[in-house]
Amino acid sequence: MKISNRVLNMNFSPIRKLVPLADDARARGLKVYSLNIGQPNVVTPDSFFQGVTNYDEKIVKYSDSRGIPDLINSFIEAYKRWNIDLAKEEILITHGGSEAILFALMAICDPGDEVLVPEPFYSNYNSFAKIAGAKIVPFITKIENKFHLPPKEEIISKITDRTKCILFSNPVNPTGTIYTYDELKMLADIAKEYNLYLISDEVYRQFVYDDIQYVSAMYMEDILDRVILVDSISKHYSACGARIGLVASKNKELINQMLKLCQSRLCVSTIEQYAASNLINTLDSYIEDVRSKYNSRRNLMFDYLSKIPGVICDKPCGAFYILAKLPVDDTEEFAKWLLTDYNYEGRTVMIAPGSGFYGTEGLGKNEARFSFCTSVDDIENAMIILTHAIEAYNNLKTK
Amino acid sequence: MKISNRVLNMNFSPIRKLVPLADDARARGLKVYSLNIGQPNVVTPDSFFQGVTNYDEKIVKYSDSRGIPDLINSFIEAYKRWNIDLAKEEILITHGGSEAILFALMAICDPGDEVLVPEPFYSNYNSFAKIAGAKIVPFITKIENKFHLPPKEEIISKITDRTKCILFSNPVNPTGTIYTYDELKMLADIAKEYNLYLISDEVYRQFVYDDIQYVSAMYMEDILDRVILVDSISKHYSACGARIGLVASKNKELINQMLKLCQSRLCVSTIEQYAASNLINTLDSYIEDVRSKYNSRRNLMFDYLSKIPGVICDKPCGAFYILAKLPVDDTEEFAKWLLTDYNYEGRTVMIAPGSGFYGTEGLGKNEARFSFCTSVDDIENAMIILTHAIEAYNNLKTK
Repeated sequence: MKISNRVLNMNFSPIRKLVPLADDARARGLKVYSLNIGQPNVVTPDSFFQGVTNYDEKIVKYSDSRGIPDLINSFIEAYKRWNIDLAKEEILITHGGSEAILFALMAICDPGDEVLVPEPFYSNYNSFAKIAGAKIVPFITKIENKFHLPPKEEIISKITDRTKCILFSNPVNPTGTIYTYDELKMLADIAKEYNLYLISDEVYRQFVYDDIQYVSAMYMEDILDRVILVDSISKHYSACGARIGLVASKNKELINQMLKLCQSRLCVSTIEQYAASNLINTLDSYIEDVRSKYNSRRNLMFDYLSKIPGVICDKPCGAFYILAKLPVDDTEEFAKWLLTDYNYEGRTVMIAPGSGFYGTEGLGKNEARFSFCTSVDDIENAMIILTHAIEAYNNLKTK
Repeated sequence: MKISNRVLNMNFSPIRKLVPLADDARARGLKVYSLNIGQPNVVTPDSFFQGVTNYDEKIVKYSDSRGIPDLINSFIEAYKRWNIDLAKEEILITHGGSEAILFALMAICDPGDEVLVPEPFYSNYNSFAKIAGAKIVPFITKIENKFHLPPKEEIISKITDRTKCILFSNPVNPTGTIYTYDELKMLADIAKEYNLYLISDEVYRQFVYDDIQYVSAMYMEDILDRVILVDSISKHYSACGARIGLVASKNKELINQMLKLCQSRLCVSTIEQYAASNLINTLDSYIEDVRSKYNSRRNLMFDYLSKIPGVICDKPCGAFYILAKLPVDDTEEFAKWLLTDYNYEGRTVMIAPGSGFYGTEGLGKNEARFSFCTSVDDIENAMIILTHAIEAYNNLKTK
């Protein structure tokens, strides 16, 4: 029975590919420290659970395809603190940031259209593009430049008459880079000159360290009809499992057309929406606490990583990942070996191989992404194991 | 700014298009009886809400992309009662039956592929097909034949080398038809001869009246590698807002490939999954109660409808809709008029115009779908208003 080329050409999640090996390792009695996925280990705020308990409907009915009004309003309020001004007809609630990106691509790309993306990027952008029939055209950012955007000429050299948008996260997953005003201005200029949209994935917006001033694509006032904002409660509020996000734009006509996509799947899960709409009542202290925790973990992980012989990395300015170059040839092989063949005193680590974050074949083969949204103990233990593991792996290789 | 042809070619939901007019009517002080959507008015069972309260995680984490094991297991158990035997690697939990159908189409259709669908059909099939870039090719079923399938020759006359599947609901939305064993055997034979999949949308499976023996596509044992089952808790358990469904098949390779689609959006909303996994503990008496209630309402609505002069309809065998021919030229105009220009003692009704359920232009213009999943009082009131309204509308037209 034939399966579509669309799905045959998609990859299984490179991050999750290692899960069966990790399960086996645990079944063999090993402790596996997971630094491979961006699953925060901080508790979800009480306000979310109160929102769940506040849900007192007797019938779990279909709700508004756009999202429940309380949730839309609470996002509008929350955005005011970021000087982002959105009206209710400019927002659609989605099943996570995932659905937001997918809807954005479906609404602006037909099969064969092209999407510029700075690499390395969040690997699921590949999936969304393939589902929409669009082609990701990457342009490279380099560790030597702290993964900041390359000069304008390099970006525009990738533009063709099929290019519809530039898709990027900011703060960047997997590098933690935070784009400067000038970088955003450059993207805005390119968008204007070449008639492109900018899809700005800001799901890590809250995680900015070192007093850096965050600049949202929504501040680029002269191109707001081109900006599509993607957001989520997943990272801001450690509520990844809720699947609540949004897509928004001052381009009301675009949002109105995207409503068709929302209507096709009727509505977003209702109870999670009620819970999420109570998050606006989360104490500021929760948010500052979490940011501060991650800041410490960032510093801790960077201290360890940067001391491992042969490892090259920077301290990221945002998000909760470090993308590091390791002194191994192939981090995907290394990651598997860590789970199948290695343990340090009955413990090992799970990392995300760098190649999964690149569109260009062959890139990132000696890079790996490490999440620091886990506990201090786990980070310390994992880093110690990693130090020994790299040494052991290279000793094996040189035999 | 250009919007994709994909989305421009989609329609806004024909069912929901009338909502602003209904809102205006209510704002003018009218009572509007909504018979236009399949939103059950029976309470969601306690077991669901207990499942919500049982959720005691402190961190709302990403869960398994396939769906949480408890929920998959509870579906496996529930299906045994229907003599449907599925293993865990043959099931994927989805955001409602909507996502299940969309994933099925994406996994078997590339842009330009064709999907045979008996019309009238659930209007959102159009949306899913357009999102997947596929083309719905309808074949007609007629009220004179109680909307049963036409002869085999008529169906196969629509098959081309781009046809990938036959997509149908059973019990049928919007007609309430229940396909016989012979009809399913015919579809199975066609699938085998022409190398097609069958996507069987069984979300109304529980709502079968008059002691009819329900035959699932999953009983067609010699073609199970071709059968894709779509299901949902929405109708069975009056939990439409939860957005919990599944796609399943004995074709393990297909399900495995579809996992890529699940991974792309990470996971389904977690709290709803926990709640849904407790539904297996719903008392049989709940289910029988609901079925029995709808049976009475079916009889009630049919009694009224069939007595309105000029209305042609049958008593449906399943689901909770009656698709009737009304003595008006254009039920879409009539439906609008009911909301904008009519009231009977301060009350009016909202119906779903029949044309929204057809793929072929011009069909269904004098048909309308009436949902009887509402209260007895509402049905009675709505039917009385409808009787007067049709008379008033036709008096106007003849002036």
